Amino acid sequence: MIRITRRERFSAAHRLAKEEWSQEKNFDVFGKCSNPNWHGHNYILYVTVEGEVDEETGYVIDLSLLGKIVKEHVIKYVDHKNLNLDVPFFKGVMTSAENIAIKFWEQLEEPVNATGGKLCSIKIQETENNYVEYFGK
Amino acid sequence: MIRITRRERFSAAHRLAKEEWSQEKNFDVFGKCSNPNWHGHNYILYVTVEGEVDEETGYVIDLSLLGKIVKEHVIKYVDHKNLNLDVPFFKGVMTSAENIAIKFWEQLEEPVNATGGKLCSIKIQETENNYVEYFGK
Amino acid sequence: MIRITRRERFSAAHRLAKEEWSQEKNFDVFGKCSNPNWHGHNYILYVTVEGEVDEETGYVIDLSLLGKIVKEHVIKYVDHKNLNLDVPFFKGVMTSAENIAIKFWEQLEEPVNATGGKLCSIKIQETENNYVEYFGK
Amino acid sequence: MIRITRRERFSAAHRLAKEEWSQEKNFDVFGKCSNPNWHGHNYILYVTVEGEVDEETGYVIDLSLLGKIVKEHVIKYVDHKNLNLDVPFFKGVMTSAENIAIKFWEQLEEPVNATGGKLCSIKIQETENNYVEYFGK
Amino acid sequence: MIRITRRERFSAAHRLAKEEWSQEKNFDVFGKCSNPNWHGHNYILYVTVEGEVDEETGYVIDLSLLGKIVKEHVIKYVDHKNLNLDVPFFKGVMTSAENIAIKFWEQLEEPVNATGGKLCSIKIQETENNYVEYFGK
Amino acid sequence: MIRITRRERFSAAHRLAKEEWSQEKNFDVFGKCSNPNWHGHNYILYVTVEGEVDEETGYVIDLSLLGKIVKEHVIKYVDHKNLNLDVPFFKGVMTSAENIAIKFWEQLEEPVNATGGKLCSIKIQETENNYVEYFGK
Repeated sequence: MIRITRRERFSAAHRLAKEEWSQEKNFDVFGKCSNPNWHGHNYILYVTVEGEVDEETGYVIDLSLLGKIVKEHVIKYVDHKNLNLDVPFFKGVMTSAENIAIKFWEQLEEPVNATGGKLCSIKIQETENNYVEYFGK
Repeated sequence: MIRITRRERFSAAHRLAKEEWSQEKNFDVFGKCSNPNWHGHNYILYVTVEGEVDEETGYVIDLSLLGKIVKEHVIKYVDHKNLNLDVPFFKGVMTSAENIAIKFWEQLEEPVNATGGKLCSIKIQETENNYVEYFGK
Repeated sequence: MIRITRRERFSAAHRLAKEEWSQEKNFDVFGKCSNPNWHGHNYILYVTVEGEVDEETGYVIDLSLLGKIVKEHVIKYVDHKNLNLDVPFFKGVMTSAENIAIKFWEQLEEPVNATGGKLCSIKIQETENNYVEYFGK
Repeated sequence: MIRITRRERFSAAHRLAKEEWSQEKNFDVFGKCSNPNWHGHNYILYVTVEGEVDEETGYVIDLSLLGKIVKEHVIKYVDHKNLNLDVPFFKGVMTSAENIAIKFWEQLEEPVNATGGKLCSIKIQETENNYVEYFGK
Repeated sequence: MIRITRRERFSAAHRLAKEEWSQEKNFDVFGKCSNPNWHGHNYILYVTVEGEVDEETGYVIDLSLLGKIVKEHVIKYVDHKNLNLDVPFFKGVMTSAENIAIKFWEQLEEPVNATGGKLCSIKIQETENNYVEYFGK
Repeated sequence: MIRITRRERFSAAHRLAKEEWSQEKNFDVFGKCSNPNWHGHNYILYVTVEGEVDEETGYVIDLSLLGKIVKEHVIKYVDHKNLNLDVPFFKGVMTSAENIAIKFWEQLEEPVNATGGKLCSIKIQETENNYVEYFGK
């Protein structure tokens, strides 16, 4: 069993706030991340797939295939977008790094596992000082 | 003469578009950077100051003083903000990396030069694949 | 369950040597790391916390709270300090990266776990070519 | 138990192709990686060893000893070499990142474990956008 | 006047050797870089263009246009190639980082300057420990 | 004319303080950098040499020769040392990044220029947030 990881990047706007709360309460809880006019990040995404090495190719999964899956099911929805307003799978979801990782897992689990590999972890780096990792449960 | 550079970071939303143009024309010219709902970046700012070394301290400029100037005149206006909507000195300005560098120069030249050093360059890194440098003329 | 990691940095002097050994023996065992006049590093610390995502905030733990805990219980003791001479919790301890990770765990376990999250790992990067990870047992 | 990781680097040429296939079939399966005249990478290798901390030294394993083992059993064979043509332990093996990790494990397991530590993982970074990890089974 | 830089990457094999010299002499002069079976690198290319900011767009040059020019005139010739064997503009040229920078300048000067900007520098990073810069004269 | 840069690293302890000042005054001027028990950094040094490309080798200067010069005249004096106590050429000099760059220039100018190249700049990175550059005048 080997793990292989592909890195992808996307730039997006977002905001942390609950609509039903006042701006003051949102600021108390989320600080500057609640700015009503949005802010944004260069997010870095690491998708890790686990599997056995194919004897013929030496691959767990063809990285260009993995790249296509990630672009098709995640990147095209979020790159140069507003995570809160533009992305169907973030409707009604707080766009914290934690939830981004969980929703990306849900987007990628089926198409990645259909290749014969097994989705192993999703890592989202939001700034150089923080990242989250999700392992599917 | 020595050059000393301080790095600062800020996360912001922005959009490239001319209000007087249609969305189609904006997309033709600015591509995905024109998304009406904004996108964002982790910007990295490098402020370079040139000067002679003070014999007593060994400093061109005290880096913590330089840091305070940069935070007071630039970072507090742009971090976790929308560059187009929230920042007085970007009013009516296309928020390209080029113009960000020029406007930051205008914000920093006077307070930096008041320390005895001389503002030498502003570098703005927008993504890992592009950056701009401005030297004041 | 999600893991979230916060990165912090500190710059410190240290030395690897046993007081009861001669300088020659210390040099034999620890090489240039035993220099009696000290050397130093820009250490990078990664603190990883595991927990469930709060439905209301989307957080495992508020990163600014985690940052405050790490600064209060670790960084303020070690940044711009001599690890061997200035830090109470390194008294009598060889300041190898391994022991730094273990002692930081002891400093952080209680205050981190009091937030409802669970301290999951401490990673210390000493140079670009080496790092250690400790998982609490 | 602590894990300690040493990073090493090597620059090498390689090619992904099966000799018994036509160039067309190799291109279909391996794309530009099958270029008959080779291409190359700056590979980054991370060797992770797990063990208990020695009370006297504070070490899991002396990093300079670990470095010597990695240079002697891996780096000297692959640095500034052609992985397909020059390296005995890649004879008849597809030089994918996956197989590089597995073969390096086989080279390192015995000499690393002879030190008293336990080889824990081999990570190979081929480009800034992909890496593999192998844990020995 | 502003400078804008675009980063591109390519992975290639190469070798430093003079055909008319013996392998021994080549090894004496070029060391391990003369390995007859090639080695390779992940090269990083920085293309810097200088110009005035267009008032309408805020651009010195459209980065996606600059990217297209660099891919068309440089990257497509060198990525996943053997610099000595596969690249017409390196025929008879020692493929040192210095010469790579000079030849890339010759490839890019005309198409970049045709955009209205002015090619300002070519930087080639061969490993994390060395890079060259060429300014066209 | 081409510029070639070699990166080297060293880890050292230091302190900013004037012996004739009280500890209070030193703290007022140099802040935490004045800690009497020292602190330290992983310094990164970039040595840039300018010259014409040798037609036979394609080199401005042989990088392994440049590396030897830098190790012999700088690194061996400062790596795993105390800059204030252990280094002859820092006697009586405030070990600010600015002065480190100037003193390294003085150490390297003669041996580098003896190779036929011309020392062009010394860059010292002290932390990820600051660096200095010196051009010899």
